[in-house]
Amino acid sequence: MMEATVAITKSQNKKTKPDPETLQFGKTFTDHMFTMEYTHEKGWIQPEIKPYAPVEIDPAAMVFHYSQSVFEGLKAYKDASGDVVLFRPEENFKRLNRSNKRLSIPPINEQLALDYLKQLLELEKDWIPTAEGTSLYIRPFVIATEPSLQVAPAHHYKFFIILSPVGSYYPEGIHPVSIMVEDHFTRAARGGTGTAKTGGNYSAGYNAQAKASSEGHAQVLWLDGVEKKYVEEVGSMNVFFKIDGEVITPELNDSILQGVTRKSVIELLHHWEIPVTERKITMQEVFDAHKAGKLEEAFGSGTAAVISPIGELTWNEETMIVNGRDTGEVTKALYQTLTRIQTGKQEDPFGWITKVSS
Amino acid sequence: MMEATVAITKSQNKKTKPDPETLQFGKTFTDHMFTMEYTHEKGWIQPEIKPYAPVEIDPAAMVFHYSQSVFEGLKAYKDASGDVVLFRPEENFKRLNRSNKRLSIPPINEQLALDYLKQLLELEKDWIPTAEGTSLYIRPFVIATEPSLQVAPAHHYKFFIILSPVGSYYPEGIHPVSIMVEDHFTRAARGGTGTAKTGGNYSAGYNAQAKASSEGHAQVLWLDGVEKKYVEEVGSMNVFFKIDGEVITPELNDSILQGVTRKSVIELLHHWEIPVTERKITMQEVFDAHKAGKLEEAFGSGTAAVISPIGELTWNEETMIVNGRDTGEVTKALYQTLTRIQTGKQEDPFGWITKVSS
Ligand SMILES: Cc1ncc(COP(=O)(O)O)c(C=O)c1O
Ligand SMILES: Cc1ncc(COP(=O)(O)O)c(C=O)c1O
Repeated sequence: MMEATVAITKSQNKKTKPDPETLQFGKTFTDHMFTMEYTHEKGWIQPEIKPYAPVEIDPAAMVFHYSQSVFEGLKAYKDASGDVVLFRPEENFKRLNRSNKRLSIPPINEQLALDYLKQLLELEKDWIPTAEGTSLYIRPFVIATEPSLQVAPAHHYKFFIILSPVGSYYPEGIHPVSIMVEDHFTRAARGGTGTAKTGGNYSAGYNAQAKASSEGHAQVLWLDGVEKKYVEEVGSMNVFFKIDGEVITPELNDSILQGVTRKSVIELLHHWEIPVTERKITMQEVFDAHKAGKLEEAFGSGTAAVISPIGELTWNEETMIVNGRDTGEVTKALYQTLTRIQTGKQEDPFGWITKVSS
Repeated sequence: MMEATVAITKSQNKKTKPDPETLQFGKTFTDHMFTMEYTHEKGWIQPEIKPYAPVEIDPAAMVFHYSQSVFEGLKAYKDASGDVVLFRPEENFKRLNRSNKRLSIPPINEQLALDYLKQLLELEKDWIPTAEGTSLYIRPFVIATEPSLQVAPAHHYKFFIILSPVGSYYPEGIHPVSIMVEDHFTRAARGGTGTAKTGGNYSAGYNAQAKASSEGHAQVLWLDGVEKKYVEEVGSMNVFFKIDGEVITPELNDSILQGVTRKSVIELLHHWEIPVTERKITMQEVFDAHKAGKLEEAFGSGTAAVISPIGELTWNEETMIVNGRDTGEVTKALYQTLTRIQTGKQEDPFGWITKVSS
């Protein structure tokens, strides 16, 4: 059974807050963290907020051996009046449970999890940076802690929420980046774990990312694992193309992550009455559109970068320059509107913003 | 640079050794473990043997978030004269480095790693059970310890060797098991991480295993991730079929793990002049062979079970009974010969056995 109250132990030696000018992504953590345990007998128990510190884990903990783990990523901002706000957090906790299901991890009460997060943020609100492009990145995650080498779901888990003040995920910021289409390595297979935010999907991509970086590209574009024909994602982002006035994004399948930003982009485009379609799209179609002068814009979407314009796409030795390497109109409008709604600088007609406190 | 000597700290309170009759797989660990650190600046440093104990790890350690980890599995036995022996350990350290490469983890000196293992075994030799079917399971593994949420290879790693006295991996022992062909979930994709022993491949299979178990099957047979047509592996084992006098095993590709037992089976069959072929084989071919009365034997191969006969194969609602659910002749001979060579009960004409001490 879940407990509604959280045991809070406050840190006795507060850290110095980092310079907002030189913030990196995910390198600095705040004074406190939230943790909760799962045992097969008692369910999720012992919700606690306590000083951020290393944890003691058995070397046989199953997470080290079979990577039974899931995570989420969202951001907290301060709005103009200094209130702490979250962008669609309920979507992240819903997805956490979808990931849990795929990884055979017991579900977590979404309402309570959000409540715990709010309590943690209440305590840590001074850590939320306010400079342009900065935010407090929130990383909820679950790991299998049972010490056992059996290839089977664990009986014990630990759920954490840690917080990290971040600058821009991509130092390039809103400047268009160069992308390489990956034709050998696969991010996620049909019947695999691609719709789950689970660690294995990410380290599996390091070889491809290294190849792309060594050839001067910022990120990889992933094709489907079956035919290596259909566009799936870009790096750790969903991807959109504007072709001849219509915005197209790969339709969800069992290897594409259901991004919260992706969903918001689609809703915004509908709101603006800009044609937007979710369907299968091959790399060949993107290439042909480019050749015909109809590939107007391309961008990735994700919590970290929000919107990341694509300036250049390399596929089979051919390089397509998108919109003269400038950020397109729709891309720019999406970035501005989303970041303004997220930081409370613009009205939120969609009910996307959750206030943590007032 | 690697150090050749190991700092040894002996445990002050030795644990009671478990009853060899009731040993499970991977639940009990010995008194000591081996650890070594990697830093970007210094390489692999600080080889240590010390009491087995929980380790302190930062909640932001990259292994928890992006599953950058690899592992190995091999066994130590005592031969008739009480000497500690290993089965082809150099193959495991070679594979560890292949896995490291796929996961962007820096390589480990294979010679030194084997040396460290021998020193650990020397200290822990009283933990090696000697009852039929028992052994000391050895689990070398590497985890990314750097605290960072960046989706990129870590700069800090920890290498461990832990030891666990084990009974039979499959409580069913050498009795034939029932296998279900999995037609939805994929273990490993083309261009994925299937040839690496990395955690993500294992937790990705839990959903399929749960489905198989709920339908009364012991393990899953994995088909290829592209066409869902070709046989790849069975559970965490390689797989062999004897059809009309010929033993066939799926040829290695980039989604099949290169099993040490698989390699040894092939070499033994060659030695016995039993026809053995590595090639693509579809599930349809296995089915047709069964229908024609030519599917004579089927078995899995892996360190844990050594050889695991398949008594029954269920595919698309059809169940094939193999060899009247009895262990076949070749299957039995392979099991007996391999386990006898491993435990020094039979001469080793192949040079597979490495003595740890005398
Ligand atoms: C693989 C992958 N695709 C897409 C996304 C975008 O999802 P979201 O918009 O919810 O951040 C993420 C997460 O950032 C991801 O890890
Ligand atoms: C997926 C998988 N296939 C096959 C095997 C068999 O390999 P080995 O014979 O080296 O134990 C293993 C390891 O046990 C494995 O994890």
